Amino acid sequence: MSRRVAVYGAGSWGTAFSLVLADAGCEVTLWGRRQVLVDAINDTRGNPDYLPQVRLPATVRATTDPAQAAHDADIAVLAVSAQSVRPLLEAWAGLFERRTVFVSLMKGVELGTDKLMSQVIAETTGARADRVAVVSGPNLAGEIVARKPAASVVACPDDTTAALVRSACHTPYFRPYTNADVVGCELGGAVKNVIALAAGVADGMGLGDNAKAALLTRGLAEATRLGVAMGADPLTLAGLAGMGDLVATCSSTLSRNHTFGACLGRGLSVEEARTRTRQTAEGVASCKGITGLGRRHRVDLPIAETVADIIHHGRDPEEAVHTLMSRTTKPENLRNGRASTSE
Amino acid sequence: MSRRVAVYGAGSWGTAFSLVLADAGCEVTLWGRRQVLVDAINDTRGNPDYLPQVRLPATVRATTDPAQAAHDADIAVLAVSAQSVRPLLEAWAGLFERRTVFVSLMKGVELGTDKLMSQVIAETTGARADRVAVVSGPNLAGEIVARKPAASVVACPDDTTAALVRSACHTPYFRPYTNADVVGCELGGAVKNVIALAAGVADGMGLGDNAKAALLTRGLAEATRLGVAMGADPLTLAGLAGMGDLVATCSSTLSRNHTFGACLGRGLSVEEARTRTRQTAEGVASCKGITGLGRRHRVDLPIAETVADIIHHGRDPEEAVHTLMSRTTKPENLRNGRASTSE
Repeated sequence: MSRRVAVYGAGSWGTAFSLVLADAGCEVTLWGRRQVLVDAINDTRGNPDYLPQVRLPATVRATTDPAQAAHDADIAVLAVSAQSVRPLLEAWAGLFERRTVFVSLMKGVELGTDKLMSQVIAETTGARADRVAVVSGPNLAGEIVARKPAASVVACPDDTTAALVRSACHTPYFRPYTNADVVGCELGGAVKNVIALAAGVADGMGLGDNAKAALLTRGLAEATRLGVAMGADPLTLAGLAGMGDLVATCSSTLSRNHTFGACLGRGLSVEEARTRTRQTAEGVASCKGITGLGRRHRVDLPIAETVADIIHHGRDPEEAVHTLMSRTTKPENLRNGRASTSE
Repeated sequence: MSRRVAVYGAGSWGTAFSLVLADAGCEVTLWGRRQVLVDAINDTRGNPDYLPQVRLPATVRATTDPAQAAHDADIAVLAVSAQSVRPLLEAWAGLFERRTVFVSLMKGVELGTDKLMSQVIAETTGARADRVAVVSGPNLAGEIVARKPAASVVACPDDTTAALVRSACHTPYFRPYTNADVVGCELGGAVKNVIALAAGVADGMGLGDNAKAALLTRGLAEATRLGVAMGADPLTLAGLAGMGDLVATCSSTLSRNHTFGACLGRGLSVEEARTRTRQTAEGVASCKGITGLGRRHRVDLPIAETVADIIHHGRDPEEAVHTLMSRTTKPENLRNGRASTSE
């Protein structure tokens, strides 16, 4: 029996994931905010604004009506920007079936509350944790719609829900693995955007692959320390939703966060970078939430703090990244962040 | 007081590290096998064969005489190919001072014995473990000689030796961190070459960044499992000498192992790839040693086994990498390599 899935958000990842769901045999209703884009998707089977190369099958239908998408949905996938999920779900709360399972594709932290996306979904819909899952991994949308091979993680504390979501998106080119560690998966995705921003700055400055690799290594260590403090399994951060996603994002020139950082590294202002990168770079907002989580859990997050200083407090990117690279960065004692070397 | 350092091996990394040592204030004697290259280095200050862009200061002098290099050396750095270190050191055993500290820059496993380079050095020179160090990290030679910022690990069980080596190679652009975990550092470097070969095959086949990120993630998990079985600290593999080195190597088109794999992925034979990549791709030999260590320590190493099958048993690279990508690869239970998902 084919699953009915509502996908909220017709950006690049929402659109690409709709293709995966359709290829896995689901009936997909793709909600978008703007009528002109929804019409274009229905008429052309492409997404001219965010993913022109995609060709969606007939089992994906777009709509601007959130109720039509929610009707009889087994699964509701959320692929809107991290900061808009609360107001949207508050408006839509009555539309969903009691059995509907929610899936977050979002990689961010809510400003003001420092909450992860699964928490915001649970709060606004009233769904218990066993009906909220997260899909996260090294999944660049452009490669997914070219049906190049990729693996991903479906995280949910409930095995049955995890298995439902896994089977709904399992195709020959997209391989989902289940994991009970929702916090680790979400944190990996959220921190990665911030690290990608920093790596973009380094790339924009032309610092090279050695410096970038050191930055990624420290970045993952930083995410892992925060994750452990929040109850995550460190192995989740070492897996597809942590290291995998970080590496894919930072090695791709397609990443919005990386592109945004690279603009800064080349000397553009935050405003100019915003104009240049049309889509939302989640790390721009999330760095504040991440540093908030760091303070709350008393974990030192030098890279996230640096990114927040650059974006929100006008710190010079070049000076900031040089300082980050040249301070006693203690990468070889990742356990507690204390130096194993006298300097 | 300036240190006297002998560097054995005038390939790209031996040459680049000589520059680092000289920049840190050492008197360097660089040993090379071929008179013509040694003369070129002394005459032009460059290394026309392996690193034409370098300009070595006058404090680096090249020689073909191993005794001249060894004379009065505080530190002897070994940067020859992994399989040649034993015969060379057996021939040179009497040349070194009793106080000389040995440093391995080599990333490989000895064929036949499955021994790590530090073990081979200790056996052939009679030096105890407290006089043998390893330097390893994300250190692409081409970027080092451009004096772009890089970090690295100096591993030795003895703090005094580690500090000596650290101070001998510490410059504003090259930041060494000490770590007591020699096995973890060496294994990270050795396995990385094999993973880079597999990633090169995937890149040669055009599989994309998502697939490559999954391969790197699984590769590091494989290295970590082997390391833990051999007594290494898993955090060493998560650090600069593990993840850092792996990421730098696989994101660079300059890596020999990656280039070798990419040739195979594009359909060239092992022999043709060998001809195309002039320098030694350590992973070609080391994959056998790594799989030997896996069998010895009863750790499943699917990527290393696949690379060994391709290089040494004529397995088709395209089929092999497809199989690797599509089998139940269990990345989300990295602890024991057992699947956390029914398939």
